[in-house]
Amino acid sequence: MEIFDKELLSKIDNELNKYVEKDNTLYNASKHLLFAGGKRIRPYLATLTYMLKKDNLDEILPPAVAVELIHNYTLIHDDIMDNDDERRGRTTVHVEYGEPIAILAGDLLYAKAFEAISNIKDPKKAHEVLKALSKACVEVCEGQAMDMEFEDRDKISLDDYFEMISKKTGALIIAPIEIGAIMAECTDEERNALYEYAKRIGMTFQIQDDVLDLIGDNKKIGKPVGSDIREGKKTVIVLHALENLPNNKKERLLKILGNNNATDEEIKEAIDILGDSINYAKNIMKNATEEAKNYLKIFDAEKRKRLEAIADFIMDRVY
Amino acid sequence: MEIFDKELLSKIDNELNKYVEKDNTLYNASKHLLFAGGKRIRPYLATLTYMLKKDNLDEILPPAVAVELIHNYTLIHDDIMDNDDERRGRTTVHVEYGEPIAILAGDLLYAKAFEAISNIKDPKKAHEVLKALSKACVEVCEGQAMDMEFEDRDKISLDDYFEMISKKTGALIIAPIEIGAIMAECTDEERNALYEYAKRIGMTFQIQDDVLDLIGDNKKIGKPVGSDIREGKKTVIVLHALENLPNNKKERLLKILGNNNATDEEIKEAIDILGDSINYAKNIMKNATEEAKNYLKIFDAEKRKRLEAIADFIMDRVY
Repeated sequence: MEIFDKELLSKIDNELNKYVEKDNTLYNASKHLLFAGGKRIRPYLATLTYMLKKDNLDEILPPAVAVELIHNYTLIHDDIMDNDDERRGRTTVHVEYGEPIAILAGDLLYAKAFEAISNIKDPKKAHEVLKALSKACVEVCEGQAMDMEFEDRDKISLDDYFEMISKKTGALIIAPIEIGAIMAECTDEERNALYEYAKRIGMTFQIQDDVLDLIGDNKKIGKPVGSDIREGKKTVIVLHALENLPNNKKERLLKILGNNNATDEEIKEAIDILGDSINYAKNIMKNATEEAKNYLKIFDAEKRKRLEAIADFIMDRVY
Repeated sequence: MEIFDKELLSKIDNELNKYVEKDNTLYNASKHLLFAGGKRIRPYLATLTYMLKKDNLDEILPPAVAVELIHNYTLIHDDIMDNDDERRGRTTVHVEYGEPIAILAGDLLYAKAFEAISNIKDPKKAHEVLKALSKACVEVCEGQAMDMEFEDRDKISLDDYFEMISKKTGALIIAPIEIGAIMAECTDEERNALYEYAKRIGMTFQIQDDVLDLIGDNKKIGKPVGSDIREGKKTVIVLHALENLPNNKKERLLKILGNNNATDEEIKEAIDILGDSINYAKNIMKNATEEAKNYLKIFDAEKRKRLEAIADFIMDRVY
């Protein structure tokens, strides 16, 4: 079994395209990143969750792509906030089209996401999905604000970090799974199990991002290794290290962390110092992934296979 | 009768406040403009429309404030796009909090608007309101993009202009009236009449903005008289003038239009040249306002009074 069903992914892309068909500067800016090879993991999760119980794809595709539209608006706006020039190996939207159009392109995708929700035929389901998606959108903003605030703050606990990523990254992994469950009319017990699954793979998703920044292949992750160190990001790895390193190593790490002009040698040294903490992060992911898969056991063994495979993929992925 | 019912306006403010109660940088940035003395004309229109037929305020307030939240997100983002330092006599959000937080504050209000829609109890009404609001949000983005594009384009027809303002300004005047009609369970005939009313006051709203920029009191409008001329904005007044002025006056106008360093004397001269076109604009507003009020005639004479008064207010307002 392939983890990613290409036919399904192409249906997701077709559905996405319906919302951005127009051909003008605003719409082209909105499409710039949307069709630059994202993994579509969010709409895919919504669809796989739905398919645990039902098989009417026409019903799940509109709310599934809504989450992808929201995800893409956040990427466009985040790139402006972070002043990033590249993503997925392409220039970012604001570099290509200027900041005003980029802000507006994000705002348009935001609107299109809710237009997609309004295309759900059953008003009761639309209402429930609206609750889930608007809540996730609030959390994403709150999480992004926490992340920005952390950069200027000295003392951040691991609890703070986990709260931040549960909002910034987790919310948009949990939402599609909740949405799939709503559309499939899952029972409360099933929805609860799916929520626990989603929480864990959402956390793993962010932690693996943090790990890849340190030990990934820069060509595959689309940015230089150690970017987070140069930016002084307080990832789970860094926070664990600051709490557990002996003083001499900790001081050395603090000298390199947040130094935009750190040499490649220094980055290597920092990654070396972070070794034990990288293992700590990997261990968290391993446990969370096991737990996530266990929560799926109440579903049909055949139908849950891809969701299990995705949990593994999120932890093992190299990009 | 006072046009604006203070008790109702304070209920609207109380409802708004529920969505932004938290006290941190992100939420404070979101509140910066929201509670800086806006007229609340959009939620007020939603509520008055609803009260044509029903009187359960608890039902209309959440979707009414949703439109105000959307309106405020657009103001925050527009101020960034236009590089404006002041609005309503206060520094703009991005000047006060920096651009990243300002983008995010707008994004948060956007999410809160849809959270407000999700608080509508009746799923069918929520679904219909969601359709109306998401459509309006798409149009606002498209209208703003058209407006930006017009600045760099030589030939713009009056038709282009009216299409642009029907999206940029009209959509968020039409939406609250549609939403009021949905929540009040208006008949198709009633909804159609309200739509025609809304279209006309929406157009008048933008035209009066353009007029006030030329002949308003700079203290009341919160920006220097003639800003639009210095920015080279293609308003209905300017477009009419370019189509109708004799060549010598047209050339003089084109010299001043878009010149950021134009002197106050030159601005005065331009306004003088635009005199006939200002009257043309006033005439459009007068007819549209009359028509708008005529469409209300199918409703109870007592209950429609404030909506009639608002149509006049929009044309006559000095701020």
